[in-house]
Amino acid sequence: MTSTTEVAEGWDPTTLQSRYDEVRAYTETLAAPLSPEDQTVQSMPDVSPTKWHRAHVTWFFETFVLADNEQGFAPFQDKYWFLFNSYYEGIGPRYSRPDRGLISRPGAQDVGVYRTNVDDRMRDLLTGLDEGTLAKLAGTIELGFHHEQQHQELLLMDIKHVLSRNPLQPVYAGSRTQEVQPDAVSWVDVEGGLVEVGHEGGGFCFDNELPRHEQWLRPFRIADRLVTNGEWLEFMTDGGYRRHELWLSDGWAKIQTEGWQAPFYWTEVDGVWFEHTLHGTWPVNPGLPVSHVSFYEAEAYATWAGKRLPSEAEWEHAARSLDVTGNLANSTSWHPEAAAPAGNSGTTGNSGTGELRQMFGDCWEWTSSAYHPYPGFHPAAGAIGEYNGKFMSNQMVLRGGCALTPAGHARASYRNFFPHQSRWALSGVRLADDGAAA
Amino acid sequence: MTSTTEVAEGWDPTTLQSRYDEVRAYTETLAAPLSPEDQTVQSMPDVSPTKWHRAHVTWFFETFVLADNEQGFAPFQDKYWFLFNSYYEGIGPRYSRPDRGLISRPGAQDVGVYRTNVDDRMRDLLTGLDEGTLAKLAGTIELGFHHEQQHQELLLMDIKHVLSRNPLQPVYAGSRTQEVQPDAVSWVDVEGGLVEVGHEGGGFCFDNELPRHEQWLRPFRIADRLVTNGEWLEFMTDGGYRRHELWLSDGWAKIQTEGWQAPFYWTEVDGVWFEHTLHGTWPVNPGLPVSHVSFYEAEAYATWAGKRLPSEAEWEHAARSLDVTGNLANSTSWHPEAAAPAGNSGTTGNSGTGELRQMFGDCWEWTSSAYHPYPGFHPAAGAIGEYNGKFMSNQMVLRGGCALTPAGHARASYRNFFPHQSRWALSGVRLADDGAAA
Amino acid sequence: MTSTTEVAEGWDPTTLQSRYDEVRAYTETLAAPLSPEDQTVQSMPDVSPTKWHRAHVTWFFETFVLADNEQGFAPFQDKYWFLFNSYYEGIGPRYSRPDRGLISRPGAQDVGVYRTNVDDRMRDLLTGLDEGTLAKLAGTIELGFHHEQQHQELLLMDIKHVLSRNPLQPVYAGSRTQEVQPDAVSWVDVEGGLVEVGHEGGGFCFDNELPRHEQWLRPFRIADRLVTNGEWLEFMTDGGYRRHELWLSDGWAKIQTEGWQAPFYWTEVDGVWFEHTLHGTWPVNPGLPVSHVSFYEAEAYATWAGKRLPSEAEWEHAARSLDVTGNLANSTSWHPEAAAPAGNSGTTGNSGTGELRQMFGDCWEWTSSAYHPYPGFHPAAGAIGEYNGKFMSNQMVLRGGCALTPAGHARASYRNFFPHQSRWALSGVRLADDGAAA
Amino acid sequence: MTSTTEVAEGWDPTTLQSRYDEVRAYTETLAAPLSPEDQTVQSMPDVSPTKWHRAHVTWFFETFVLADNEQGFAPFQDKYWFLFNSYYEGIGPRYSRPDRGLISRPGAQDVGVYRTNVDDRMRDLLTGLDEGTLAKLAGTIELGFHHEQQHQELLLMDIKHVLSRNPLQPVYAGSRTQEVQPDAVSWVDVEGGLVEVGHEGGGFCFDNELPRHEQWLRPFRIADRLVTNGEWLEFMTDGGYRRHELWLSDGWAKIQTEGWQAPFYWTEVDGVWFEHTLHGTWPVNPGLPVSHVSFYEAEAYATWAGKRLPSEAEWEHAARSLDVTGNLANSTSWHPEAAAPAGNSGTTGNSGTGELRQMFGDCWEWTSSAYHPYPGFHPAAGAIGEYNGKFMSNQMVLRGGCALTPAGHARASYRNFFPHQSRWALSGVRLADDGAAA
Repeated sequence: MTSTTEVAEGWDPTTLQSRYDEVRAYTETLAAPLSPEDQTVQSMPDVSPTKWHRAHVTWFFETFVLADNEQGFAPFQDKYWFLFNSYYEGIGPRYSRPDRGLISRPGAQDVGVYRTNVDDRMRDLLTGLDEGTLAKLAGTIELGFHHEQQHQELLLMDIKHVLSRNPLQPVYAGSRTQEVQPDAVSWVDVEGGLVEVGHEGGGFCFDNELPRHEQWLRPFRIADRLVTNGEWLEFMTDGGYRRHELWLSDGWAKIQTEGWQAPFYWTEVDGVWFEHTLHGTWPVNPGLPVSHVSFYEAEAYATWAGKRLPSEAEWEHAARSLDVTGNLANSTSWHPEAAAPAGNSGTTGNSGTGELRQMFGDCWEWTSSAYHPYPGFHPAAGAIGEYNGKFMSNQMVLRGGCALTPAGHARASYRNFFPHQSRWALSGVRLADDGAAA
Repeated sequence: MTSTTEVAEGWDPTTLQSRYDEVRAYTETLAAPLSPEDQTVQSMPDVSPTKWHRAHVTWFFETFVLADNEQGFAPFQDKYWFLFNSYYEGIGPRYSRPDRGLISRPGAQDVGVYRTNVDDRMRDLLTGLDEGTLAKLAGTIELGFHHEQQHQELLLMDIKHVLSRNPLQPVYAGSRTQEVQPDAVSWVDVEGGLVEVGHEGGGFCFDNELPRHEQWLRPFRIADRLVTNGEWLEFMTDGGYRRHELWLSDGWAKIQTEGWQAPFYWTEVDGVWFEHTLHGTWPVNPGLPVSHVSFYEAEAYATWAGKRLPSEAEWEHAARSLDVTGNLANSTSWHPEAAAPAGNSGTTGNSGTGELRQMFGDCWEWTSSAYHPYPGFHPAAGAIGEYNGKFMSNQMVLRGGCALTPAGHARASYRNFFPHQSRWALSGVRLADDGAAA
Repeated sequence: MTSTTEVAEGWDPTTLQSRYDEVRAYTETLAAPLSPEDQTVQSMPDVSPTKWHRAHVTWFFETFVLADNEQGFAPFQDKYWFLFNSYYEGIGPRYSRPDRGLISRPGAQDVGVYRTNVDDRMRDLLTGLDEGTLAKLAGTIELGFHHEQQHQELLLMDIKHVLSRNPLQPVYAGSRTQEVQPDAVSWVDVEGGLVEVGHEGGGFCFDNELPRHEQWLRPFRIADRLVTNGEWLEFMTDGGYRRHELWLSDGWAKIQTEGWQAPFYWTEVDGVWFEHTLHGTWPVNPGLPVSHVSFYEAEAYATWAGKRLPSEAEWEHAARSLDVTGNLANSTSWHPEAAAPAGNSGTTGNSGTGELRQMFGDCWEWTSSAYHPYPGFHPAAGAIGEYNGKFMSNQMVLRGGCALTPAGHARASYRNFFPHQSRWALSGVRLADDGAAA
Repeated sequence: MTSTTEVAEGWDPTTLQSRYDEVRAYTETLAAPLSPEDQTVQSMPDVSPTKWHRAHVTWFFETFVLADNEQGFAPFQDKYWFLFNSYYEGIGPRYSRPDRGLISRPGAQDVGVYRTNVDDRMRDLLTGLDEGTLAKLAGTIELGFHHEQQHQELLLMDIKHVLSRNPLQPVYAGSRTQEVQPDAVSWVDVEGGLVEVGHEGGGFCFDNELPRHEQWLRPFRIADRLVTNGEWLEFMTDGGYRRHELWLSDGWAKIQTEGWQAPFYWTEVDGVWFEHTLHGTWPVNPGLPVSHVSFYEAEAYATWAGKRLPSEAEWEHAARSLDVTGNLANSTSWHPEAAAPAGNSGTTGNSGTGELRQMFGDCWEWTSSAYHPYPGFHPAAGAIGEYNGKFMSNQMVLRGGCALTPAGHARASYRNFFPHQSRWALSGVRLADDGAAA
């Protein structure tokens, strides 16, 4: 991230404090509908309990900002140092990830106390900030904002999974989306050549979006919208999950072992497919983008459709050359998760002025690119350098953003990543194809 | 249990109702110190969440009493039928046991509502009970009392494990026990011959305590108290956990695989052994009975000591011939778990007038007997017949009772049982030996 | 075994040598039909490769006889000491059991060289034996005979499993048995009372058959023959593998997990059940005893039939009181494995003069008794004490003998044992019931 | 591969037959030192038994050449169709890969009979070949040659693993290599720009080397030789396996779980490191290239050295621009596996006229590139299309060739691939760095 190597631009103590309050408050808004019991459960190793998310993002500020800069610093609670470290080896030993659901205390309310304490101390710190320290700290604090936003998205993905395991079918918030039918897909031609990939400077980015560099692209075409549930049903009806020739070998093995026959949250009752969402379990809505599919499924679908997935460079170049650059606040509001709690409504915004739709606010879009370092990439020194770089193996890049992504968090150069088999994230599919000249 | 084959003796509607209220209230007393988060966690498959226990014992009355006898019966909640069935195949499909900790709803408070609802309906049923129905139902209701008492004990064993997994070392209740030193052990000689084993009639028993039958015993000797922590430390110091010749093959494999070097809740810090208890983590108290050891450890200890474990027939015959018959309310009150919440203090009572001490209120005592049916045993018809009989393989019998056993629950013919490797139950060791004449 | 505590009776150097030659030669006879590749494969952890059996029984003589008694002893090969130790912790570290199939060398022929070498050295030792040394050694050598016989039986059970995994359906030896129909079963009444159990002295026994002791038995009835394949088919047709109420809880879980629907070696092709045997795969023969069923299945079958399994004391008492005492050489020759290689034909002898049939030469018979030490049992000192005692947990006793048991190996007090779920051994079912007076 | 889309060039029936004989004979040469037992063992799921390799490459010709072209074709043995299919879903069901070591029959000799049978039938087919059929078949037959060569390499890697598991430390062939010391490494500067990647046409290639396409490269530097054992020892001494900051997160987890502390075949005895090779176990030779390291280790080493791995495009471009193009027959003969059986000596040739050494005949070289399809890649139709394409996930590309690669098999565009954690292949490390201008 820019934070550790250069001065984050455009911040003064007042705007920092104001943004801090805003980001922190939104986390609590998201947790508000959840009972202490809801906030405690970890339904699988990938998932973290809500109260863990709330505590961990707090720990991040305490560890990376307060520890080195607060006068007479002492941790709020020694053991929290251990409990709420996610994966930073450089900070010391940490509590086992798959066991996060075994920790009943601190309870949801205790975590609230922890949050308030750190907020107060952060406020004190920011109040007395001279310009030199501001220059030194703003980048890390800004990173803390984006870090907390990532966990806001994860909190929702995770609680969606937690509630899905409950036979009582609890609802997080919101109500049923009106049924819509798929509209026609259009194909947008994009010229290739020597293009620039990576963050263009100006504003925040994570370290994995750098350095900006050149890449050679052949001409290609890209679909102007995501694959829909209705189209996915056709794939299923056509034996998509039973035809080995459509699948990568690892994917085929996975669907055999796991018995996958549909996207993650779909279940069939008497011949009708239902989908678990944050606002309840409803018949699959044919016009909405398919979501919660793994890379393997996305890739098999593309093969079935006679197309392919875009590379991350193609995706980014398409977004930029067509002037669809994210960070937008308007929304087409037709996504299954659109009915999330107030405050999130602005986040499902997607398309810009270009011909491309649903680029930022519906589903994270699988690309054909492995998550590897850009040429010349070097992680930051110290524990904060573990933020992104050490995960660059066995994962695929997803681009865009999703209906659960907080407003202002997505951008064209953003690189999300998940293992090939992951399905609990809100991931979807946009098709691409070789260009006319190819 | 007697309940399903003969009329339970001594009950009238008033005493039934009064006992019902008493038993039900005690469960809530035990849960009272626990937060909603505490009540939600399942720390391993053997453990059930507190709120699950509270709901399951309620389900038992709803299923086995109300369902067939309440006018216009309908379950409180259809899905509870599924969620809170423990293992009764005859009732229908049930929720996966190892996943009980994934269920955040119903929350602890919702379970309270469920309990109140069933209590009200039970009260209505009992109010209008004619003699014939009383004769029919009293046995099952009485079984429900003893069933709930079993879960009261399990609730405490389970929450002990849940809290033990938490690096914050939370305390359930109570405070440190004063340090005591082991006193001398005495050996009690018991004559053998053709003895009677099994429940003698009069009062409640489970079906696995029947039929009473004859068994031939050689003369034997039995220790008048349990093995102490201090003695166990000697075993450890003498290489007890490192000497293969002391162990059964399965036990040796187990301690290698699991890395066992001490009883379950013991941890070493700078050369001092500490023990996690319900009232906190404290240095091991040398005079208290060792607890939370597996059958394998009990057996290896006995081999090391040049002794053996008693058979269940020996244990029962010793208890009965020495007039130590359980169900007592006085206590030596020196056990680590003695400092449990009010209401339980009467349960640690143990010895009677005989020379045998700590028979009922300290630790369940491993015997050398596999948990098998008594000659002539037949489980009851219907789902209730699954209560005990189907578990009669791969388990060993434990006798007596423990500091967590509710008052009035233990008796000389009681057969508790756990797999050889179980350690989360409050299990200890009493030694035996062949008699002089053998 | 008697061997280590008292002088084995009736041996002089000539008879010892002659018996040694006989036992050793029979092992090679059994291995003769097998290729080097056949002798190398380990098809599951329970199974050992043929050449491992051949080497291990040789190692037994080298370790327990030659090592302490041969002048200037040196192991044939240092690493064999490690490779061919089965489970004797007292001898030192040993090669991992589940990896026995990874060892291509020593090859089958090399093992032959090892066998010849040890045979020569044993011959030299026996030649010069004075009476005192004879008294000291004869017991261990005799134990070696019975040990090798146990492995002869295992060798056949194991190669049966190895060949069963091969889609080419190879035949070990022999040809199809003629189809027979079940004849009627009769019930034999046996009086109870205070009976003696355990080896009666005179001749060899293993240590686990001692001490002989008294046990109280109620009157009981026992079937005069084993349950047949035809009867088992009725059990299957009646939903035996789908009715939870017939099964122990562990057994029910096992058949669900493993998908068991029939005995181990049975497969259904177009509605007809076939059975893999050492002489090929043939339609199930209805009149032969059912074999390769687990304890769980045996127990469920008995429940379905309204009967129960005999205890080991009942079995032994029945055999002895009816004068059916094993060690016989005549055979009813109607068992599926009867067509084993020449030399074994005499081993399927079963009944004596009593009314009880198939007691020793058809299938090992599951009893309702856990494999526990007899009252007063103490294993021998040293590594040889690991022979039996340390396995006395989590296993059930089987009595009798089977069609693969070498001639002269079975007897009324013999205690075989396997875990509840084991099916690759040649195990069958004899029913019992409470007696008229019970 | 070219074979299925275009006429393979330069073949006539005589040269085809001659090359067929040559390739087939070399497989038997490699198997010759191995006993039937050696040829049967499968030491882990990745490894196949020698006799399976010998049969599978034969099956390949029978399936893809004879089946559609032989008059009156019938498989040599129906079940072989099932047993020796490796991974072709399009051919039908196949025998479970991890169970290949359970199949004792067909034995090593039976496989020889199968090979001779197919060779005879291939000879008959080739004899009568008209030009049109030649044009149709030559490509597939040529693919069969390269397929068999791949298995020749695998056969050696696999038997190396099999023998390594044996405490007797058997030798495959050859004798100890003389100790050599590392010489200095030099760095070769390579210009970047828009370069061409992929097979250039003319001669055989696999389908995954196509299509040739353009890629933009920054200037870079590449080491003129592989990392040596001596250098790896420095890495180990410097805590390489204990410093989390050097490792990818997945790699760090792997070395913790597996306890890796050195390359795969290294073991420490009294402070000295030994290496298992095909010619025995010897002290690690400091001047030889380190081998049998995983991608994770290669990447961590590069991080430790302040360098990085080359991308596959960089590797190929360096090889081509420096005129080091593989397929060479001269050898530096200093590799640990150099002492392989006669016939292979020519394969360890590596460098060409350029400054780059050890490019083709020492170790496969890990690159930083995921194994993904080239832009525009489409697998062939039918089962043969499963050859490469379906494995394009979760694997990394290795370039070059190794000491076990058959002569004439390697080339500059060749793409080998293994999962990140694989170590049983002969894989090593060449470092790269950003160029001066970068």
